[in-house]
Amino acid sequence: MSKFWSSMVKRTEPYVPGEQVNQQDIVKLNTNENPYPPSPKVLEAIREEMAGHLQLYPSPTADDLRATIGRQYGLTADEVFVGNGSDEVLAFSFMAFFEPGQPIRFPDVTYSFYPVYAKLFDIPYEEVALNEDFTLQADKFFQSEGGVILPNPNAPTSLYAELVQIEEIVKNNPDQVVIIDEAYIDFATKSAAELIQQYDNLLVVQTTSKSRSLAGLRVGFAMGNASLIDALIRIKDSFNSYTLDRLALVGAQAAFEDEAYFKEITAKIIDTRNETTVVLEQLGFTVLPSQANFVFARHETVAAEFLYNELKKEGILVRYFNKPGIDNYLRMTIGTKVQMERLVVALRGILNK
Amino acid sequence: MSKFWSSMVKRTEPYVPGEQVNQQDIVKLNTNENPYPPSPKVLEAIREEMAGHLQLYPSPTADDLRATIGRQYGLTADEVFVGNGSDEVLAFSFMAFFEPGQPIRFPDVTYSFYPVYAKLFDIPYEEVALNEDFTLQADKFFQSEGGVILPNPNAPTSLYAELVQIEEIVKNNPDQVVIIDEAYIDFATKSAAELIQQYDNLLVVQTTSKSRSLAGLRVGFAMGNASLIDALIRIKDSFNSYTLDRLALVGAQAAFEDEAYFKEITAKIIDTRNETTVVLEQLGFTVLPSQANFVFARHETVAAEFLYNELKKEGILVRYFNKPGIDNYLRMTIGTKVQMERLVVALRGILNK
Repeated sequence: MSKFWSSMVKRTEPYVPGEQVNQQDIVKLNTNENPYPPSPKVLEAIREEMAGHLQLYPSPTADDLRATIGRQYGLTADEVFVGNGSDEVLAFSFMAFFEPGQPIRFPDVTYSFYPVYAKLFDIPYEEVALNEDFTLQADKFFQSEGGVILPNPNAPTSLYAELVQIEEIVKNNPDQVVIIDEAYIDFATKSAAELIQQYDNLLVVQTTSKSRSLAGLRVGFAMGNASLIDALIRIKDSFNSYTLDRLALVGAQAAFEDEAYFKEITAKIIDTRNETTVVLEQLGFTVLPSQANFVFARHETVAAEFLYNELKKEGILVRYFNKPGIDNYLRMTIGTKVQMERLVVALRGILNK
Repeated sequence: MSKFWSSMVKRTEPYVPGEQVNQQDIVKLNTNENPYPPSPKVLEAIREEMAGHLQLYPSPTADDLRATIGRQYGLTADEVFVGNGSDEVLAFSFMAFFEPGQPIRFPDVTYSFYPVYAKLFDIPYEEVALNEDFTLQADKFFQSEGGVILPNPNAPTSLYAELVQIEEIVKNNPDQVVIIDEAYIDFATKSAAELIQQYDNLLVVQTTSKSRSLAGLRVGFAMGNASLIDALIRIKDSFNSYTLDRLALVGAQAAFEDEAYFKEITAKIIDTRNETTVVLEQLGFTVLPSQANFVFARHETVAAEFLYNELKKEGILVRYFNKPGIDNYLRMTIGTKVQMERLVVALRGILNK
């Protein structure tokens, strides 16, 4: 710590992302990336854009991308906000909708970036206990003082809460913003975006990092009532005029335009997820019913931390959280069928020892 | 305004960037972009990277780029921070080093984003009057309560303060951080980066948007004592793990590696700037002695706002600030020789009417 640090720096407890390794031979199942490359049309769009004018600023308003995303959900461009990954969109949302002194609520098992934002911006928070089986009890989120944020499907549990539950939470917080963080929604039943026309306090956040295979490009977005979007724009325009570079703008847009490719790879991942679940159960794992591109599982007899370390020795990275309540679980990203076979073979070997 | 807006949103007064137009025939001299494309090696690096793994997250620590930039200035990677444009780096710096309740100082004629950040983060500020000729009086920045931020060369004046002046300011704020915003330094005499080893309270911020022709890619950076850089990293890791995408990381790195190209285009712009200054003076302009990639000039008899509007009609965009003290000046980016000839011909026509 240094005398030059602000009180804000001093109170931070930074997020630690999953390991990013560059070894070619690693099976990387630890940060929920898509195992398939982005649509060829994404690469084409980037190639075309870079031949143009990289020396000129990108569009500060990103109108084209916002309109394109909006069309997917029957929304207009002014109901869509785009940012540098959904993490930035979430950070801006904490700034725009949550208030120091007014406690917000999120589940006690959830995306571990939420308490990090809360500490940074000095927002008090209550961690609402999930049920024993990690499902959500909606009424515990009713009438929050400062707002609500929760992922659906939840991370790292992979569980999806039905839209009726989400709607109850939104309805019962009429004076507070409810943020539904749908990073994994394309692998699940249904987005809460369809509720936006009815509820002016609902913000739905999504990303291109998972289902659109663009983790390397950093494009996230939020959808909601135009006055919520306006608040996000005011924050962004007080922070950084141009958060998305030219290549990210056109790349993300092309990804949304190639619906066929998106559907194809999403279906493949869901298919692999379902197969993997069955095989893991055969190996003695309890696997939560996933609606994400990862599974969250514990073994009946062997400790998760041991499995994590043994897998790592064999060049397979999964995610282990050393936190009470989930410290006997592994979060394993769904890769290609070949990658999942390598995982299963490795697990079988470890368990047979 | 909406009941859902936080007090932070309510107090924002967002920055308004210069117009971004996409018309091919416009001579765009309003946002200080480089008229030359980035080095061919930048495009090559991006092309190679996109063929790889856009579906995987980029490096959250950006070590390679930080080391590369550091080498330019005899610094190590842990004395360099990188972010999504220097605007983001400045925003993080306000969060990391400035404190609500402790007034910071910046010049009264300066980059208009500083008061925007200050309002966002609730940092009080004193606008220190420049001399009549827009030069800096260093001692007015001594012993600040909350810190100092100033651009060198200053924007929009284009004036460069000698390093001895900067050093005096840094030396006379031993308990506060002094941020020197060097967006235009590559068109000027000398960076303050050489003072970093001596002063632990000096942060030097630069960008690839101007001299490296990468405004469209969004890469800025800060250099300073490792403990200052550590504070910025803590803020960033509490905000967004991956602020630079894969293409921006490799593109910026290639730009720093191609020193010959950088020197060539920078020299060309300086040359064009000096020629343009002479011609503008012949047309009756008073031109401040620029050390940037733009000139700041007023005409002896014709109002700046009129010239701005007339130029716009002819497809030439320059920047006009309707602010006391500078409302009779135009800020004109230095483009190619051909673009500057078009500007001069248009001005001559307007002035002869």
